[in-house]
Amino acid sequence: MIRVGLLGCGTVGGGVVRLLAKNQRAIAARVGAPVVVARAAVRDLDRARVPEIDRAVLTTDASAVVEADDIDVVLELMGGVDPTLALVERALAAGKQVVTANKMLLAQHGPKLLEAARSRGVDLAFEASVGGGIPVIRALSQGLAGDEIVAVTGILNGTSNFVLTRMQRDGASYDAAVREAQELGYAEADPTLDVGGHDAAHKLVVLSMLAFGVRPPHGAIDTQGIEVLSPTDHVMAARFGFAIKPLAVAVRSAAGVSMRVGPELVPLTDPLSSVGGVLGAVAIEGAALGPCLLVGRGAGELPTAVSVVGDLIDLAAAKRAQATGRLTAALAPVREEAPLARSATSARHYLRFSVYDRPGVLARLTGALGEARVSIEQLVQQGGGQGEGAAVEVVVLTHRANDAAVRQVVARLDGEDFVARPCCALRVAER
Amino acid sequence: MIRVGLLGCGTVGGGVVRLLAKNQRAIAARVGAPVVVARAAVRDLDRARVPEIDRAVLTTDASAVVEADDIDVVLELMGGVDPTLALVERALAAGKQVVTANKMLLAQHGPKLLEAARSRGVDLAFEASVGGGIPVIRALSQGLAGDEIVAVTGILNGTSNFVLTRMQRDGASYDAAVREAQELGYAEADPTLDVGGHDAAHKLVVLSMLAFGVRPPHGAIDTQGIEVLSPTDHVMAARFGFAIKPLAVAVRSAAGVSMRVGPELVPLTDPLSSVGGVLGAVAIEGAALGPCLLVGRGAGELPTAVSVVGDLIDLAAAKRAQATGRLTAALAPVREEAPLARSATSARHYLRFSVYDRPGVLARLTGALGEARVSIEQLVQQGGGQGEGAAVEVVVLTHRANDAAVRQVVARLDGEDFVARPCCALRVAER
Repeated sequence: MIRVGLLGCGTVGGGVVRLLAKNQRAIAARVGAPVVVARAAVRDLDRARVPEIDRAVLTTDASAVVEADDIDVVLELMGGVDPTLALVERALAAGKQVVTANKMLLAQHGPKLLEAARSRGVDLAFEASVGGGIPVIRALSQGLAGDEIVAVTGILNGTSNFVLTRMQRDGASYDAAVREAQELGYAEADPTLDVGGHDAAHKLVVLSMLAFGVRPPHGAIDTQGIEVLSPTDHVMAARFGFAIKPLAVAVRSAAGVSMRVGPELVPLTDPLSSVGGVLGAVAIEGAALGPCLLVGRGAGELPTAVSVVGDLIDLAAAKRAQATGRLTAALAPVREEAPLARSATSARHYLRFSVYDRPGVLARLTGALGEARVSIEQLVQQGGGQGEGAAVEVVVLTHRANDAAVRQVVARLDGEDFVARPCCALRVAER
Repeated sequence: MIRVGLLGCGTVGGGVVRLLAKNQRAIAARVGAPVVVARAAVRDLDRARVPEIDRAVLTTDASAVVEADDIDVVLELMGGVDPTLALVERALAAGKQVVTANKMLLAQHGPKLLEAARSRGVDLAFEASVGGGIPVIRALSQGLAGDEIVAVTGILNGTSNFVLTRMQRDGASYDAAVREAQELGYAEADPTLDVGGHDAAHKLVVLSMLAFGVRPPHGAIDTQGIEVLSPTDHVMAARFGFAIKPLAVAVRSAAGVSMRVGPELVPLTDPLSSVGGVLGAVAIEGAALGPCLLVGRGAGELPTAVSVVGDLIDLAAAKRAQATGRLTAALAPVREEAPLARSATSARHYLRFSVYDRPGVLARLTGALGEARVSIEQLVQQGGGQGEGAAVEVVVLTHRANDAAVRQVVARLDGEDFVARPCCALRVAER
């Protein structure tokens, strides 16, 4: 029998308990032994739980889960870094197989934890940490292990994609779409981590470790939130042949790995442009493989639980065969390396300026862009003729231009007296 | 050192040799030991090969590869069933880890071979057998192993998808598109296995074994080729809001598993409808997971080689850790079971009749459909007014109707004297 210890038995933990109960015979056949939840550490013993959990296994003592002699596999589903980090370290040190769904923990402490697992001869698995029900971790770390990965482009945050999809398809305002996401339980009461791009940045770090063996220093990923967008941007993007999607992108070149998170214009001919609502996706480009796209539910109790249980089956079978540590030993080694600077990359850009409707303003705007060697492909002016005090929107689609140059000229223009509101500047994602 | 023996060193074998050479350091790090091609059985020692192969390892003696003491992993890349089956059986019996890309071998003899591997404590891996560079085998057998799979829908044959895409997007004729596929090297000189749906049927058997633990008896999958289609069908499908795609579908219900291969009408809102050219895809529906879609190059030397090398890394690492047999032991057991009969399933149908332009014909056609309880949603008549001898096309989109009833009424109408050519009947794929 394989005895499982849960750290946390909330949404995902409850889903795991339900899946283990529902599919117990098939899972036992795959592992070669029954898999039972033997202990589950929770904060509140009295809270309502899924009926499948045996309340006798509940405890408030997390130490009793990570170090108990009778626990073979620990599932860390509590989230956060403190006290989670110490608990996972103790579980690995005690020789437990560990499954985690915690992208923040992995982004901040992944290499240290993988090294701890390796030196103890156990496995640390984390399919559920990125893209809930999308089997991307296994694809990158095993299926494509014989290839060189060139680029990874993901729609990694479900809340952001839901909000942008509602704005794009139904013309919802940003605030209304966020409120709806909260009502549906997709977004937290404080959605900052999601809409600000930080959750996606954590996930991009995890993917970059697997795809490139590279982890950027903490906070080094250029991260832009989706709060900057207005309904106009979706209308204009569609007019230019794009959909605005919340992307997380890492691209390897000879000079290094460029990484960024933020809303970008995705051509309507790119299948990523149609991944909407609560779906997520990861597009992988391999040197030999060519393009590969994985789409699925990026979050949610049951899809995430499927990924956790998939890892659990692997790790339990390894435990039973006394062959632990092999999955983790086969992962590419990870080194810390700063992402390429913006000055090393270029793209087409979408720029929406809000300027006062005065004579000569357009000339000053286009003149500044020209001086910065940012060449204009298309320009659309909207809302003119309301008088000199009113603001008009000037939307520019540029030719390919250096990312740093665009950022500098936008910052300079934002300081001009004819500018009513800061410019909304988005990159065009051409894969 | 892990010593690899190749059976076959043609297109895919050459790709494997090149990948192993190019990425040897990264692969050695993952395996924990260098991986070298020690023997390669070929038919013709004098044929030109990729420069990365050491010609000293070439032999015409396949037995020397499958039973040599110094071979750890055998890669079967020769295809076909005879003499491949016997060679793979001998390799497994000799305790070799085996990787195969051979869907026909697996479809016909998979359970026997898996059992041979299991009883000898070794692994038989086959990611490359379905969907070249699409990591679907690993997803079904490992990532989603904790869930119950409900449906698998694939675009599994690259040649068929290329041909239909050229017909749909560029108005090419069937013959011209097949010729182009042959010129580009996608299609064999005799494309029957591909365009007739048999290649896709083999792959569907492999997927069904993994997803449902069910293998249909040989030849039991309802298989329709793409030769029945005319340019009119693509035009009419688009008018009704569909694209015609070459699908392979297996759906589990309480009564059993229904399976079919053939061109179907896919709604333009379904992401499968936009998987074109040489791309392939597998859409998986899990009870807990919900929808998941994997898209990539379905064939080709290097994408297929990536899948072979991914398997090789897994099996070599297992060999090195003296932990062989675990991957194969964890696969779901497979039983033989006939697919559900057509009378157990229903769908909307697309029917294109070619009938002589005579008074009363339309009434007889619609009358026959009505008697068979096949209700018409839309009807379009094309090409009338050419005189009584000429044929006109009557295209019908039905409401949901029993598959067997549709087939029967179509067969009956094909025997009527007012019918100029057999009806083209396609299912509408509503996932």
